[in-house]
Amino acid sequence: MSAPNPLRSYVSGHWHTPDDEGTPLHDAVTGEEVARISSAGIDMAAALDHGRTVGGPALRELTFHQRAALLKALASHLREHRDELYALSARTGATTGDSKFDVDGGIGVLFGYSSNSRRELPNDTVYVEGAVEPLGKGGTFVGQHIATPLRGVAVQINAFNFPVWGPLEKFAPAFLAGVPSLVKPASQTAYLTARLVELILESDLLPPGSLQLVCGGVGDLLDHLTPQDLVSFTGSASTAQRLRTHPAIVRNALRFNAEADSLNVSVLGPDARPGTAEFDLYVKQLVTEMTVKAGQKCTAIRRALVPAQLLDDVAQAAADRLAKVSVGNPANPDVRMGALASLEQREEVRRSLKALLDAGSVVFGDPERVEVVDADPERGAFVSPVLLRADDPGRAEPHEVEAFGPVSTVLPYTGVGEAIELAARGQGSLVGSVVTGDADFAREVVLGVAPWHGRLLVLDADDAKESTGHGSPLPALVHGGPGRAGGGEEMGGIRGVLHHMQRTAVQASPTVLGAVTSRWVPGAPRREGEVHPFRKSLAELRVGDSVVAGPRTVTREDVDHFAEFTGDTFYAHTDEAAAAENPLFGGIVAHGYLVVSFAAGLFVSPEPGPVLANYGLENLRFLTPVKPGDALTVTLTAKQITPRENADYGEVRWDCDVTNADGESVAKYDVLTLVAKEAS
Amino acid sequence: MSAPNPLRSYVSGHWHTPDDEGTPLHDAVTGEEVARISSAGIDMAAALDHGRTVGGPALRELTFHQRAALLKALASHLREHRDELYALSARTGATTGDSKFDVDGGIGVLFGYSSNSRRELPNDTVYVEGAVEPLGKGGTFVGQHIATPLRGVAVQINAFNFPVWGPLEKFAPAFLAGVPSLVKPASQTAYLTARLVELILESDLLPPGSLQLVCGGVGDLLDHLTPQDLVSFTGSASTAQRLRTHPAIVRNALRFNAEADSLNVSVLGPDARPGTAEFDLYVKQLVTEMTVKAGQKCTAIRRALVPAQLLDDVAQAAADRLAKVSVGNPANPDVRMGALASLEQREEVRRSLKALLDAGSVVFGDPERVEVVDADPERGAFVSPVLLRADDPGRAEPHEVEAFGPVSTVLPYTGVGEAIELAARGQGSLVGSVVTGDADFAREVVLGVAPWHGRLLVLDADDAKESTGHGSPLPALVHGGPGRAGGGEEMGGIRGVLHHMQRTAVQASPTVLGAVTSRWVPGAPRREGEVHPFRKSLAELRVGDSVVAGPRTVTREDVDHFAEFTGDTFYAHTDEAAAAENPLFGGIVAHGYLVVSFAAGLFVSPEPGPVLANYGLENLRFLTPVKPGDALTVTLTAKQITPRENADYGEVRWDCDVTNADGESVAKYDVLTLVAKEAS
Repeated sequence: MSAPNPLRSYVSGHWHTPDDEGTPLHDAVTGEEVARISSAGIDMAAALDHGRTVGGPALRELTFHQRAALLKALASHLREHRDELYALSARTGATTGDSKFDVDGGIGVLFGYSSNSRRELPNDTVYVEGAVEPLGKGGTFVGQHIATPLRGVAVQINAFNFPVWGPLEKFAPAFLAGVPSLVKPASQTAYLTARLVELILESDLLPPGSLQLVCGGVGDLLDHLTPQDLVSFTGSASTAQRLRTHPAIVRNALRFNAEADSLNVSVLGPDARPGTAEFDLYVKQLVTEMTVKAGQKCTAIRRALVPAQLLDDVAQAAADRLAKVSVGNPANPDVRMGALASLEQREEVRRSLKALLDAGSVVFGDPERVEVVDADPERGAFVSPVLLRADDPGRAEPHEVEAFGPVSTVLPYTGVGEAIELAARGQGSLVGSVVTGDADFAREVVLGVAPWHGRLLVLDADDAKESTGHGSPLPALVHGGPGRAGGGEEMGGIRGVLHHMQRTAVQASPTVLGAVTSRWVPGAPRREGEVHPFRKSLAELRVGDSVVAGPRTVTREDVDHFAEFTGDTFYAHTDEAAAAENPLFGGIVAHGYLVVSFAAGLFVSPEPGPVLANYGLENLRFLTPVKPGDALTVTLTAKQITPRENADYGEVRWDCDVTNADGESVAKYDVLTLVAKEAS
Repeated sequence: MSAPNPLRSYVSGHWHTPDDEGTPLHDAVTGEEVARISSAGIDMAAALDHGRTVGGPALRELTFHQRAALLKALASHLREHRDELYALSARTGATTGDSKFDVDGGIGVLFGYSSNSRRELPNDTVYVEGAVEPLGKGGTFVGQHIATPLRGVAVQINAFNFPVWGPLEKFAPAFLAGVPSLVKPASQTAYLTARLVELILESDLLPPGSLQLVCGGVGDLLDHLTPQDLVSFTGSASTAQRLRTHPAIVRNALRFNAEADSLNVSVLGPDARPGTAEFDLYVKQLVTEMTVKAGQKCTAIRRALVPAQLLDDVAQAAADRLAKVSVGNPANPDVRMGALASLEQREEVRRSLKALLDAGSVVFGDPERVEVVDADPERGAFVSPVLLRADDPGRAEPHEVEAFGPVSTVLPYTGVGEAIELAARGQGSLVGSVVTGDADFAREVVLGVAPWHGRLLVLDADDAKESTGHGSPLPALVHGGPGRAGGGEEMGGIRGVLHHMQRTAVQASPTVLGAVTSRWVPGAPRREGEVHPFRKSLAELRVGDSVVAGPRTVTREDVDHFAEFTGDTFYAHTDEAAAAENPLFGGIVAHGYLVVSFAAGLFVSPEPGPVLANYGLENLRFLTPVKPGDALTVTLTAKQITPRENADYGEVRWDCDVTNADGESVAKYDVLTLVAKEAS
């Protein structure tokens, strides 16, 4: 018999109601029961198998751009239902601001990934990484790296503090990669994630099997992992260690990505004395990081490193700001900071605070009591922001003990070397920040602490207005950190997508490599047909379609004229004696721009047709000087064809090789054009 | 008291002779004692600390290009001493061909990494990855990823089968990254690695502390690992699992890279019937892979998947070739295959063969005896090549049991789908190959099995002559594979270097980001001085130095003339009515090449000076159509300065922004020039 208000899981294509009564989850503010949670009765092996056999194949049918379009549609759908998510989010103790951070942040990841990947990924199912590598002198044997989606399931184990952003930032790159997700939220706030997944499934946008949800314990889920699955975990360092050594993860050398909360630093520059913009920015950011989400952010500032001579000033200014932070019912608009996610979390924070107090004293706040607006301080998981100071920065506690709540410690440093050393004592962090108006100081700290950090923010008067802040991971940038922070890496644009794919070096002849990558590879046969390739629409054009044109002889008069016409009278084109002295040319040479202009004159097909525009050019190298009298031939070959999903044209990349009478390449480059999908 | 002929370790800046008698190591051919091995008395914690405090800082003083130059010098030095290494290598059972594979292959990795990294890495100590990411609409807040060397030691635990290549392929990328190495060879053949390290240190090329050697057991080495260290392991899957769960590795979320031997497949295409080039290539490669290094290669072919109808033909042809392989003393020039590395290895191979025989029958070879040329078959670790056939390809053994010697199994498949399925049953491999003349079949197999493979070779008549073969990892391509193959990745050009570095997202104002990366970032201040930046040598030029030139109005006559002069009469430049129909232009537009040519005419400083040549152009995008009457202004800014180590000039990358009278960018690109280091 199932309990009242049980959270359902979505596995193997069906909503599953738990087989037992489950465990109650409580409203962080009122203590009321919100829902009950249990994974009893879920066949975990079948769920994984469903992902692998239904979700994976369905996703792999789609191109990267098609998946990106779905993500965008999904983001729009969720945006329509934001208010509902905000309301549930309030029950986790979150203020409206906190909820936006979580909900809008999550939707922003979907939008960001969607646009980013349409720019950086091909409209294809295979990702081609890096250049073609010549593996032999004769050009008959070449290599290139491709990435293909793993054939398993991305098991995503999330933390309680971001019940919307957390699942979405893990789901988006997996989905784009073509790998189905199985989401396992932390119990405390799982009711919000469950509603999120309901909304996603109600949209009916996703291919079947591409998203599953397990509410409750993992049961024997991990035992059924096979080598093509992967696990992404966000949560405590101790749980990360336990998962990392799980026999199925170890046996299968599974990709295991962990993101654990860390003791993040914020360093104040010695230039940032009271009265400077940077001093104010520092204090404001510190207080914000302490109080947003009631400090329950794995990216929050735990250690505020300030020049010894500014310690008192910073402590005082921060305390003054903290005094204005009203704590209480997040539904009340006067409240600046809500509750922790549960009473258990409060106990945990108080325990950690005790350890921290061995090395420091309280600047602001009482760990045991807080004045609360519009709520019952006993039933809600409220705690005061607590700012500590540790006058001896060498003590272990501030660098090792994390109170996962609105708690930070101010520590003094003397000299940039000590600041770097103290930062490293966190043993690896997700993020650090430096607040300074001194670019040299910023450079020194950034390069000094970078090996210990996944992300570093330099905040100053120049970027403050647009800065997204110390605590906000962004989809285009990596999120994760070494050592204590878990050693993982998520997001970072397509880097996060590639984490879900296998990189494979393919070695083959140019023809076969081209067949694998759907691109023309230099050395592969070209097709010169009756029809100029500029006269073919995307529907007709094939990679390898080619035109050879020329020769055209470049005369000294051409060079003189081009110099005069364009104004490019660089001596190597105009002054015989001076050009002879040039160590690379030893005489008059044609302008590079003359060569590419003549080449265009040779390969172009002038009448109106499917080619709409030349929108760019890439990787141009001038390889051999062109001397007056040299005859140029150009070979243009369709290299890559990328139809756009939402336009009646697409991009064609052409390989362009300009050669002289000896057959030497004088210039090589890619010409980028827009070409209509159909002949008009 | 130390034993006769003990192998010394090199730790903490000194050669260390073991404190005890050690374990004897035997010549694989004669059984004589070659050396004794023990790590007794080594202070492992001190060795790690030496690497971190002496090696790391010394390496980080050097730029990538300086490190690359040292690798090249080191490669030349080792090449001088090849014969000595070959001689020792023969004692491991290797033929001269085998020794070249190991020794020359290792030296080749140094050369390859040296040239590759001078091309792909900056002459700097920080690696900048990817584009500048705009993080706000106003352009005052931007992000970019940098990579900095880990501050620990790369502990490299090598396998017995490649005592020269193995250490070098791990050392080269670590060294380039700026991370010191501690090499721990497998005992059996450690005498060869020890001599290699002696040769390296005798060269006196390396900074102190950048290379250490531990011969013998690891002792408590791993217990002393801290979060910035990393471990690269090559060897058995079971040892990989043990290391992966070592408490210090788990606790510190250490980077652990494993490369384990795998059950690699080679698939024959159905087109490759007897009499085709591909049939012969397949059989020849199979026999080569079985017998080179007596099959002791983690990349060797273990499963030969052939179309069912060709099974007999392949088995027969391979058996015929194997019959010509003479086994014996590798010093004898008539010998094609030498000994296994030790008698223990032979026992191991025979044990695995027993299991394989449960699912197959012998096509060629007697597991228990072999005719031996010029050696004592009892004292040397000789074994016959053994080819098996398993007529039921669904049996587990051929896909799970590896005999790490000259042993392969031929298996039949029916249809490409079954071939892909059977390949995947290896649960992850370092390498696979497909031998076919049919590009479609190759594409299907490659994309079908890619998620299970780190590398795939397609062999055919086109690339056979230049192919480096199934079993050879190459420095430019990744080496490693998922699942059973260990889940790791090594080499792959600069990918292997980056595995030793921490990637960090830096968020800052353009000015500060530029200070961190030593590059000019769009949005940062430019310096327009009295002196045109083309008149400055590398010694004088600074990033941010800039010239603004123009405006120049583009007239309809200019466009007409350019069309006529270059021959580029594309209708959008010449035909008013047709151009008006173009959906992107809506009227006559100037040629893109005209725009960049005029821009060059504006920014150039024509007299002889430090700028020697424009050698290329990158990332050109035409952003806004230029109409007749538009006035162009160009802003050229020094973006990145890369002096060459071995030339009196270097590269300067310029940011070029061409704008119209409204200040809109009409074209953006990077201009690449060569500039003299000093004013002449």
